[in-house]
Amino acid sequence: MEISRNSCLTLDQDDALAELRDEFNLPANMIYLDGNSLGAQPKAALSRAQQVIANEWGQDLITSWNKAGWFDLPSRLGNLLAPLIGAEQDEVVVTDTTSINLFKAIAAALHQQASSKENEHRKVIITERSNFPTDIYMAEGLTRWLDRGYRLHLIDSPDELASVLNHDTALLMLTHVNYRTGYMHDMEAVTALAHQHGALVCWDLAHSAGAVPVALNQANADYAVGCCYKYLNGGPGAPAFIWVPRRHQEQFQHPLTGWWGHATPFAMQPNFVATQGIRRALCGTQAIVSQAMIEPGLNIFAQTNMDAIRRKSLALTDLFIQLVESRCAKHALELVTPRAHQERGSQVSLRHEHAYAVIQALIERGVIGDYREPGIMRFGFTPLYTRFVDVWDAVEILRDILDSKSYRTDIQRNAVT
Amino acid sequence: MEISRNSCLTLDQDDALAELRDEFNLPANMIYLDGNSLGAQPKAALSRAQQVIANEWGQDLITSWNKAGWFDLPSRLGNLLAPLIGAEQDEVVVTDTTSINLFKAIAAALHQQASSKENEHRKVIITERSNFPTDIYMAEGLTRWLDRGYRLHLIDSPDELASVLNHDTALLMLTHVNYRTGYMHDMEAVTALAHQHGALVCWDLAHSAGAVPVALNQANADYAVGCCYKYLNGGPGAPAFIWVPRRHQEQFQHPLTGWWGHATPFAMQPNFVATQGIRRALCGTQAIVSQAMIEPGLNIFAQTNMDAIRRKSLALTDLFIQLVESRCAKHALELVTPRAHQERGSQVSLRHEHAYAVIQALIERGVIGDYREPGIMRFGFTPLYTRFVDVWDAVEILRDILDSKSYRTDIQRNAVT
Repeated sequence: MEISRNSCLTLDQDDALAELRDEFNLPANMIYLDGNSLGAQPKAALSRAQQVIANEWGQDLITSWNKAGWFDLPSRLGNLLAPLIGAEQDEVVVTDTTSINLFKAIAAALHQQASSKENEHRKVIITERSNFPTDIYMAEGLTRWLDRGYRLHLIDSPDELASVLNHDTALLMLTHVNYRTGYMHDMEAVTALAHQHGALVCWDLAHSAGAVPVALNQANADYAVGCCYKYLNGGPGAPAFIWVPRRHQEQFQHPLTGWWGHATPFAMQPNFVATQGIRRALCGTQAIVSQAMIEPGLNIFAQTNMDAIRRKSLALTDLFIQLVESRCAKHALELVTPRAHQERGSQVSLRHEHAYAVIQALIERGVIGDYREPGIMRFGFTPLYTRFVDVWDAVEILRDILDSKSYRTDIQRNAVT
Repeated sequence: MEISRNSCLTLDQDDALAELRDEFNLPANMIYLDGNSLGAQPKAALSRAQQVIANEWGQDLITSWNKAGWFDLPSRLGNLLAPLIGAEQDEVVVTDTTSINLFKAIAAALHQQASSKENEHRKVIITERSNFPTDIYMAEGLTRWLDRGYRLHLIDSPDELASVLNHDTALLMLTHVNYRTGYMHDMEAVTALAHQHGALVCWDLAHSAGAVPVALNQANADYAVGCCYKYLNGGPGAPAFIWVPRRHQEQFQHPLTGWWGHATPFAMQPNFVATQGIRRALCGTQAIVSQAMIEPGLNIFAQTNMDAIRRKSLALTDLFIQLVESRCAKHALELVTPRAHQERGSQVSLRHEHAYAVIQALIERGVIGDYREPGIMRFGFTPLYTRFVDVWDAVEILRDILDSKSYRTDIQRNAVT
């Protein structure tokens, strides 16, 4: 059957997740395909902010650390998030930034390897050159400072993994879904491969949590970090999360030993003693207002499940690919994202000679995607609030822009896109 | 002249800062003397939150990184804060937590010492055993991980400084105003003394910023960090700040090298190159909603100046001490905070056998102070919203509780006080 705008409207009518769109404050006349960069605002976030600011902060003041559960918020949010990534209760905390959580996880992994006679010689951290840069930078920063012979090995393709993993590998550190291409690793297979070589594995779930089903414990992964402001809709720059499975928690040690990770933070002892459990991944006092903004998004996920989200995500990205290839066939758009479902996250990336200019033209027409170096247009599909008809309309606008060449190739780049 | 409630009311009538109290949302029937733990809520914070959440996030979405200046927020807030601590423009950023900023500063100081032939042998970090614990823990965490012979030397009194500073000292790390006693160091003299011995000096301004005049550049200090949720009224767990004077910025290097500290964060390069200037103290993506909550508080400070605040602060703490000593004379309350103005921050701490129980009784009567181990009642005086009559009423309630022994010594301790 040929796809039409009407058939897309029918898909929306039959969509079991359709009503969840009402949970979000979305701008009129905009097709927002950038939830992989900044998730949309849950309507409930505004009343939650009012409660935190006017009541908990304004009226209850210092007593809110206990009474409103501020001190427990990193754990409570972590427990709400856990089911979305295949984690158990008390294995996740929401805290700090993805970068800083990655620093803790890398440090803990290196420490764990260095603590065993059998593995102390392992000095290599493997990651992808195409990984999100901050992941590479954090590993670079840590290894340079430790100055104990650790080195980064950057691979150019996942195909290299089988040959580069060996008895020198301390840690394999990968982003599950690539931010630029949307390529998704097989977490279970890659973890098993790394473990065969005695390496630990840390997964960055920035583009996975809330986007695709993740089964950390089933995959026997060692550490994970991730972002709450993309598919989880936790607000701009929302605090990030870190997962440490129960089996590694006791030996989880990192240098960011702040008072929130202390066994008795209010005993004011002059020596650091790490608390038991996942809260040893905490460091300083957490940004409570931003933390509180994460809960409304997680509550929306609690109304559905990741399998339903995945089904719609694949339907949306399949539809987008199919429409781009049929309706924009005469334009040189190269599909960068894998066609195979098992290798695809919840985004579609297209390469085009004038990618940056075309993205700007799309934005002017109300279709919000984004640009990533080099030469890639990136479109995120967020099943909680993206409709099938949005996909149709977005492709029609893309087609019109390309057909009419109504994009400005002389356009200046913004600092942040 | 004898002090009376009426004379306190007269002091309030004559108080040049009195009208600033209207800028805050304060609970009725509460005397809040805990602004040194969590500052009160500026009324403007609520409308600012609404703007950030409903408009910038909800409607403008990803474009707000540029359009609403989210990406620049750490610098913009840093520049607003700078005049309060004697810093220049582009020397301060608001980011992460005090603990993590301290980690960066300690790391940078050790790096700077290690980079010069003359100073590379310096291996000792001096601080006070009575320093806020997280400061000690962060130094402990960093030095243990570096494993290069660095060690912490904890002193028990500032008087030891002259004898313990020597040619092995890499860094002197002090909290300017002690969280427990309210003792204030002479920043200029202590910095000069440390410099005579070739040590660098890092100041923690958690209990100074917005509380007492600070002149970082005049004191020729080397690094400073501090907290935005106490006297600066930036909201629960508000992001912290870090100051690096222009003369040290080029050699400011630390291991938390995230993408926000990169020279070209959006070029997505696989190697870290630190940006120039203070933004190299940034690491990951910042919690924007919590950052935004800091500006309303700073705007209130812009209506006055630190000298006026200091005058009222000393008048408030003098009055409190005088009233406690005259009206509670028969009770064994020991003044822990220095009597000398030049050694006093903006708090008064009293030791009492049943300090915890008395604090709980005060809280039940609407006087909010807090308890700190061991045996100390702590009262913060925040000139922007504390009235002289509040001081009178607080002491009368304290007197009544002590006179009538209406406190429960069997009371259970809360996890967070």
